[in-house]
Amino acid sequence: MSDSAIAYAHARRGAYIEELKTLLSMPGISTLPENRDDVRATAAWLAEALRGLAMDTVEVIETPGHPVIYAECVNAPGKPTVLIYGHYDVQPVDPLDEWNTPPFEPAVVGEYVYARGASDMKGQLFAQLKAMEALAAQGPYPFNVKYLLEGEEEIGSPSLPAFITSNKERLACDVILNCDSMILGPETPSIVYGLRGLAYFELHLRGHKKDLHSGRFGGAVRNPLHELCALIAGMHDERNRVTLPGFYDGVAVLDDEERRMLEAGAESDDTWRAAAGTETLYGEEGYTTTERVGARPALEVNGIWGGYTSEGAKTVLPAQAHAKISMRLVPHQKPEDMERRLRAYLDLHCPDGITYELNLHSTGPGAIMDMHSPYMKHAREALDAVFGKEPVFIREGGSVPVVGHMQEILGVDSIMLGFALPDDGIHGPNERQHLPTLFRGVDTYIRFLEGLGRS
Amino acid sequence: MSDSAIAYAHARRGAYIEELKTLLSMPGISTLPENRDDVRATAAWLAEALRGLAMDTVEVIETPGHPVIYAECVNAPGKPTVLIYGHYDVQPVDPLDEWNTPPFEPAVVGEYVYARGASDMKGQLFAQLKAMEALAAQGPYPFNVKYLLEGEEEIGSPSLPAFITSNKERLACDVILNCDSMILGPETPSIVYGLRGLAYFELHLRGHKKDLHSGRFGGAVRNPLHELCALIAGMHDERNRVTLPGFYDGVAVLDDEERRMLEAGAESDDTWRAAAGTETLYGEEGYTTTERVGARPALEVNGIWGGYTSEGAKTVLPAQAHAKISMRLVPHQKPEDMERRLRAYLDLHCPDGITYELNLHSTGPGAIMDMHSPYMKHAREALDAVFGKEPVFIREGGSVPVVGHMQEILGVDSIMLGFALPDDGIHGPNERQHLPTLFRGVDTYIRFLEGLGRS
Repeated sequence: MSDSAIAYAHARRGAYIEELKTLLSMPGISTLPENRDDVRATAAWLAEALRGLAMDTVEVIETPGHPVIYAECVNAPGKPTVLIYGHYDVQPVDPLDEWNTPPFEPAVVGEYVYARGASDMKGQLFAQLKAMEALAAQGPYPFNVKYLLEGEEEIGSPSLPAFITSNKERLACDVILNCDSMILGPETPSIVYGLRGLAYFELHLRGHKKDLHSGRFGGAVRNPLHELCALIAGMHDERNRVTLPGFYDGVAVLDDEERRMLEAGAESDDTWRAAAGTETLYGEEGYTTTERVGARPALEVNGIWGGYTSEGAKTVLPAQAHAKISMRLVPHQKPEDMERRLRAYLDLHCPDGITYELNLHSTGPGAIMDMHSPYMKHAREALDAVFGKEPVFIREGGSVPVVGHMQEILGVDSIMLGFALPDDGIHGPNERQHLPTLFRGVDTYIRFLEGLGRS
Repeated sequence: MSDSAIAYAHARRGAYIEELKTLLSMPGISTLPENRDDVRATAAWLAEALRGLAMDTVEVIETPGHPVIYAECVNAPGKPTVLIYGHYDVQPVDPLDEWNTPPFEPAVVGEYVYARGASDMKGQLFAQLKAMEALAAQGPYPFNVKYLLEGEEEIGSPSLPAFITSNKERLACDVILNCDSMILGPETPSIVYGLRGLAYFELHLRGHKKDLHSGRFGGAVRNPLHELCALIAGMHDERNRVTLPGFYDGVAVLDDEERRMLEAGAESDDTWRAAAGTETLYGEEGYTTTERVGARPALEVNGIWGGYTSEGAKTVLPAQAHAKISMRLVPHQKPEDMERRLRAYLDLHCPDGITYELNLHSTGPGAIMDMHSPYMKHAREALDAVFGKEPVFIREGGSVPVVGHMQEILGVDSIMLGFALPDDGIHGPNERQHLPTLFRGVDTYIRFLEGLGRS
């Protein structure tokens, strides 16, 4: 069956590109209120695509934020049920002037399509839908399938945990196929078995009541910008470790066996440097780059602002300073403890005359998956068949909170099977998707699902 | 003569307020390209006002930036010539949401008029023009007068030094009346005899080539925001002294006599706290607030930005970080040395993997004036007559570069005579001017000019 499905897909690759470009042209930026209708238009497009896949039901369900798409086709008694997860929202596009082509006018250049969301993750979603379309053309699915597509992943999935909790029975499944993932390289298939968690904060410092003239008062009043800088500078020590009290409490120690396995799947530092576009790597003393990113927590300032930031000069001594600060967490750091730890640090170091306000913006749990499950075996075999080599197992630095939420609420592990590449530039300008890898993704999804049908 | 001129002015105070509101409603923000026409409209309004003052000539003269207004009435042979300096441009208005009334819709509330430029310095300019109008109504001026009004003071007067140099003969004078100043309080007349200089920079840090995903790379790549914070945090030591190599080289040491005189004219720390809107003062160890602001140099970050700063969360590891940094300089710190010192610091501390670009935005010399000149005596007597007490002599923290430029190019000292108050909120939201003090300013200018006519 999978060979004819694969032949079906191969025959349609040209048409796929045009159809993908339509999907990529929709500016569904979930964090920006002005793009709310674009997010909904993307949901409508996907619901329509699902309706073409012989589902029993396709529903666009309202949440307090952006809608969830639910679909199911459950007509294979005794066969496993796979819940396919994806998100259809995208990140903002700034800095816009660094894009070579407009982010929502998809451009195919060489083997790549460039657009916001090409890699994260409309491309992956699209590949999965095309795999299903190829299977649907062969007759009834030999497995049970449910879809859960959300529109809030890029803002921390605020509505999803409640949705999953209140739809627990409906979402019941044997395995989750999470397409929001990547492989290490076009010729290096890989499966992510570990994800970092996230705690994202906004910090506001306030000093004097209102902006002052920097000549009249400069040197005599605390400058909140200086204090913000001192606080941020103090968050790492000379070994590049995070200094927040208790930050490393309970962090799982990497044992030698896991370090060896991670090393086997590790990209070289040269590859890391090329992917990051830097000549200098950096990080916590005593760990490799792969360990720093996949198995060690990190604290990063994602944004900072205050005072006069427009063109020209303004001699102001600003009253306020602001930062967005996020932490990437590993098992067993709990996101809910992290606000307490950041507050402890700020209470300790915020000077007289400066008050702080800290808002926890979003959190997500990290996750570790069972590498030895039968479903992991199907995924491994599917990748092997398509790429001609066994995948390596890796831990990823990014956060896919839904994986942890589903582990907690549904008690089911996710198979992270996606075909983004490390140098796709997701969340940044000129995001792209490697089309040959995307096509291999279609084939891999077909073989994975066909494997499920055989179990 | 001055009594009748003063009676003339007193009779017109109501009309003055309406006329001042017209001037204050013009959004002549010199740093913003979109306000270019508004700056020119302000210049046209003032030129028209000068034409009503029996000048021999009134000219609006183009420069590479905003125009200069020059006027003169030189018909009193043997009498001193006063050059009246002012600027007609204003600062930007952000943060706009902190204004209680729109910045260019002047609002009279109690004894104050609220508007951008009310205090800095359209109010002062207006008072000076009304003094001249009152004198003109009495017959020919018994002194010679020239006007030099610029539209670029708030952006560091880039065109002015060249203009003064190439119009040196035309601007020849015995004394300069600089109205861009303040007194200590409504009942505390004062004369500024010292001003700090300015060096204003923009610093750009660049790390990896483009913005990265903070999950995928967090903990493994240097974050330019962290490095900017570390660099800024390191610019002051634990005694709140600036750490730039050579920063204090050549700074004039305050002797005991001057410290005593400054102490006599010093505002209390309570007054400083109230004016700054803070409960906590701060500054270089070993100096009073008045000394820190008037007689010691300072380094302030005026703005900082980088990464994601809009609403919501974006998990980005930014490629760049930016800051506006300015120094307030005292005799004998040379602005032209300061770029070298900041570069020396950055060369020393900017880490591997981060490059910096430093742009010197503007500079201005500081100045110290002769407290014992005959013109200073006229000013002292005028303030005494109007306020009923002798003025105190102070050093101001702000920079009025034109004072230093005129000392250097024309060889003439300025009398700083303006009627702003320390709590007017200049450069910030809800800038205001105290109207009773403004009216006393009109009287003081009349008496000062009348004193010139008697010399």
